Amino acid sequence: MSTAAENQSARLREVDEPQSQVVRFEAGNALKLDAGVDLAPLTIAYQTYGALNAAKSNAILICHALTGDQHVANIHPLTGKPGWWETMVGPGKPIDTDRFFVICSNVVGGCMGTTGPASTNPATGRPYGLDLPVVTIRDMVRAQAMLIDHLGIDRLFCVAGGSMGGMQVLQWAASYPERVFCALPIATGARHSSQNIAFHEVGRQAIMADPDWRGGRYFDEGVRPFKGLSVARMAAHITYLSDGALQQKFGRKLQNRDAPTFSFDADFQIESYLRHQGSSFVERFDANAYLYMTRAMDYFDLAGDYGGKLRSAFVGAECRFCVVSFTSDWLFPTSDSRAIVHALNAGAASVSFVEIETDKGHDAFLLDIPELFATTRGFINAAARACAIA
Amino acid sequence: MSTAAENQSARLREVDEPQSQVVRFEAGNALKLDAGVDLAPLTIAYQTYGALNAAKSNAILICHALTGDQHVANIHPLTGKPGWWETMVGPGKPIDTDRFFVICSNVVGGCMGTTGPASTNPATGRPYGLDLPVVTIRDMVRAQAMLIDHLGIDRLFCVAGGSMGGMQVLQWAASYPERVFCALPIATGARHSSQNIAFHEVGRQAIMADPDWRGGRYFDEGVRPFKGLSVARMAAHITYLSDGALQQKFGRKLQNRDAPTFSFDADFQIESYLRHQGSSFVERFDANAYLYMTRAMDYFDLAGDYGGKLRSAFVGAECRFCVVSFTSDWLFPTSDSRAIVHALNAGAASVSFVEIETDKGHDAFLLDIPELFATTRGFINAAARACAIA
Repeated sequence: MSTAAENQSARLREVDEPQSQVVRFEAGNALKLDAGVDLAPLTIAYQTYGALNAAKSNAILICHALTGDQHVANIHPLTGKPGWWETMVGPGKPIDTDRFFVICSNVVGGCMGTTGPASTNPATGRPYGLDLPVVTIRDMVRAQAMLIDHLGIDRLFCVAGGSMGGMQVLQWAASYPERVFCALPIATGARHSSQNIAFHEVGRQAIMADPDWRGGRYFDEGVRPFKGLSVARMAAHITYLSDGALQQKFGRKLQNRDAPTFSFDADFQIESYLRHQGSSFVERFDANAYLYMTRAMDYFDLAGDYGGKLRSAFVGAECRFCVVSFTSDWLFPTSDSRAIVHALNAGAASVSFVEIETDKGHDAFLLDIPELFATTRGFINAAARACAIA
Repeated sequence: MSTAAENQSARLREVDEPQSQVVRFEAGNALKLDAGVDLAPLTIAYQTYGALNAAKSNAILICHALTGDQHVANIHPLTGKPGWWETMVGPGKPIDTDRFFVICSNVVGGCMGTTGPASTNPATGRPYGLDLPVVTIRDMVRAQAMLIDHLGIDRLFCVAGGSMGGMQVLQWAASYPERVFCALPIATGARHSSQNIAFHEVGRQAIMADPDWRGGRYFDEGVRPFKGLSVARMAAHITYLSDGALQQKFGRKLQNRDAPTFSFDADFQIESYLRHQGSSFVERFDANAYLYMTRAMDYFDLAGDYGGKLRSAFVGAECRFCVVSFTSDWLFPTSDSRAIVHALNAGAASVSFVEIETDKGHDAFLLDIPELFATTRGFINAAARACAIA
């Protein structure tokens, strides 16, 4: 069997039998979706790190981004690479697993073990495909709350995440103000902008234009819309970086050649890099899940859910916030973070705001940015003292 | 015959038998391409407006952008819409056809009558497809110089254009410094950035991923890579606008509905708008030509052609320059224009620089921007006085 085929088999196993802890909710305990449908059974796959203390007061929930998953701080079962936030989470790290019980679950609609469009629909014995209702950020958070209940945790010490993860952090503070002591939304916004919806729509159209997408039923027919998903990833990847970082890293450098070939080969390093991003992504991610994740982000509009007033979303939020943005992030620019801060200030919430100077763009929240680590460590430690966590 | 099919037939006729003036160069007068190949025969399709004066001193060459063509100021033969620069070019307009003889030719590699990948290759009787050598901005300008020779014009009064058209303006000043009296490069750069190459590569991959592309031989097989070309156009179109303009024009407004449908329909106006941009574009443009145009822009690096020093490109350029940028253009940001101005200053060239405040993004050069018209009118009129044109 080829490596690509092996990877695909491994990925398929991960959907229904993940190498993670799982909890399953049956019909009596269905997930009530914003689409107006009850989803059951619901499987949630999650990882934990560190130990829950006796008071159950030291739990930190990490919310993952669009193409992330629950493998925050362990070797990824498919790629063999380190967890996506190992720089941030671990023993002695800013989110210190020697002190805190860290939880991360794959979001509903994902493809790493939590119920999503690639999961087997028990009613048919086949993958859901587009028969799964469209999910929202609020649905993801509702599912996480069910997991937190299952773990017997009344209140989370902290909820933290970047990008789509940051949207979930904001939704937690809005939906369950009494269940969060502190919140760390990073590189995110309280609503998806028109430009961001536009980029997502391009990605979705690229996937749906691939004849191997088959209206979302590609599993049944033994094909995969790899080309469309790869183009979607390439387009999105550009938005995760900054113009300056691309110019500095790649500029107009040629790829293993001294002169242009006057062809449509990947003459430029940036072309080769993007193609690699596309082709490696399709090995680990499901095309339909990509549709669901992007749609959830597009639908996110926290103010819209509260009569158009963002401040109303945070009424009663007693938790303390630390809002973080990056100067070169043009997907969720600092103005998006400022809008959150203004809404929190209007409600007299406890909020600090840090804009970090970097040319690394949106992806900075995943990278080795000392000021991000220092900010997180300081915020968490101060909150832990206020919360009397050892 | 369906409207779409009629449009396609009309478009195909336009490739080999355009509704424009044409000049044909045979093997004895081949176009020497940067790829190291002689291209012959070469057909150039062009439009003219106004009259050449007796001294042949009042000619203005307009250079068109990526998806533009020679139909600057007349009804477009395919779309039935006004020419792409009617706001700028015409009787009494900033580029006044009562005073000037305005020329615009379809660039080599295009699809509106000048030799391009959709043109019939006389050696085979079939469209060139990818058998046409890759062309560069310099090749486009060389072809334009052949047309200007054919018209008996020694020196152009002015060369003007935006975006890819602006690249050609810069190339004219570098390649034929003695043949240009004044130059108006708008919303452009002296080299394509890494981010811009990245967006173009996404578009090309979207086209090539379409199984109806057939390695570029779709004509022979009676199909067209409409879906791939449409995705390419959608991605590119986002880069022509600004985040602010999108937010202002579309925001998160829904399309003919009161609530989200919880589906992958075009719920949002921005989605509907982008889909329309994609589907209307494929009616008038050839997918292979899109590959050639984007590649020409990617390869453009004027400094690179002159030992890495942009100032060296303009040594001996006696013409006067007016460089124009727009504040919200993130495809060719003002810093790109500044780099041009600095290089010209270093060579003691006559240069003025105008950065126009607008939220319209890169597309501003095509829109109703009074400050752009005033700048152009002032620059042209002053140069005409210096040149003693009535």
